[in-house]
Amino acid sequence: MATVATRKENGRRAELIRLGVAILTEKGFHNFSLDELVALAGVSKGSFHYYFGGKDAYCLEVIQAYHEYFAKKLDMHLRDTRLSPLERIKAFTEDAATGMQRHHFKRGCLVGNLSQELAALDETFRKALMDVLQDWRNRIRECLEEGKRCGEIRADADTTALSRYFWNAWEGAVMCSKLEQSREPLDDASAAFLAYLVRPEKH
Amino acid sequence: MATVATRKENGRRAELIRLGVAILTEKGFHNFSLDELVALAGVSKGSFHYYFGGKDAYCLEVIQAYHEYFAKKLDMHLRDTRLSPLERIKAFTEDAATGMQRHHFKRGCLVGNLSQELAALDETFRKALMDVLQDWRNRIRECLEEGKRCGEIRADADTTALSRYFWNAWEGAVMCSKLEQSREPLDDASAAFLAYLVRPEKH
Repeated sequence: MATVATRKENGRRAELIRLGVAILTEKGFHNFSLDELVALAGVSKGSFHYYFGGKDAYCLEVIQAYHEYFAKKLDMHLRDTRLSPLERIKAFTEDAATGMQRHHFKRGCLVGNLSQELAALDETFRKALMDVLQDWRNRIRECLEEGKRCGEIRADADTTALSRYFWNAWEGAVMCSKLEQSREPLDDASAAFLAYLVRPEKH
Repeated sequence: MATVATRKENGRRAELIRLGVAILTEKGFHNFSLDELVALAGVSKGSFHYYFGGKDAYCLEVIQAYHEYFAKKLDMHLRDTRLSPLERIKAFTEDAATGMQRHHFKRGCLVGNLSQELAALDETFRKALMDVLQDWRNRIRECLEEGKRCGEIRADADTTALSRYFWNAWEGAVMCSKLEQSREPLDDASAAFLAYLVRPEKH
């Protein structure tokens, strides 16, 4: 019986995290309502506090869950050896743009939302969000390094700077995509980044 | 006497808008506190409601004021005929990065903050913010067109797409700059955009 109860508890906890990812990705931190969350999950506020303590601790766990979810998505594309390194980056941006379109450009990036709202205000959140962004940069950098090794991008490319630049441009494109309710900003960002990398070979 | 009273009233109204620009640029919409604003301005809440009605109407006016302020800043650089068109864009990004540094990367872009928080949630705000972004794009596009005319960028460049891309990348860089508390994302974005434009001439 204890095992069943524990399993049920873990299931509820996971469900609260899953809902948190969806809500924070669409609404951000300050529009996030605990009442809405517990109503959607069908649990009491008491349960929420039992599982997570408070809103800040909960949101930090949601950031971690989003980080894990997104790392898998990135790996799926960036480690797909059937494609060339630049094709993998294109496949990721295509997948992400299709995902935003499917949610009618209402859901952006959880890290982008919370960074915009909290980076200047809360040091704990700033550091947690910065860690996620740094991990994403490392994943793109590895892919670009592979592109260098196989001669797809020029040998003197600064992959650290390029990976930083990729995410800056991508996060801005996600924001503008929400604003414009269109995938154009995402397609522009992907095309410009890839063209920037391959152009020297063309001329 | 009536004139003095009107002048005083206009002064208070302008001061409330000026403070709103500073607060919304640093804290965004949901962290904006009416209590903080009226305390800073030294006016009563009654006066605030007399001048603006409510928070939404006030914030829409603040967006307009930011729009006017920023348009002047853009014009100052983008119409500076002592510089070449691309040097003007560089001068603008340099000025903006220095401004963020001066405010210790706490103040981002008011349009970016509010877009991230409100674009998916409020249609009136989304349209007002989209109008501002569109105007900024037009200003960069005009400068790029001048760059085409004087041969600084290639004649077949799609200046509409490039101006969209510039702002996507720039807004993302502003966000990452807040997150990283560093001007590097801004410098990266500026350098990559300009290199992207001039590269074909070099090779």
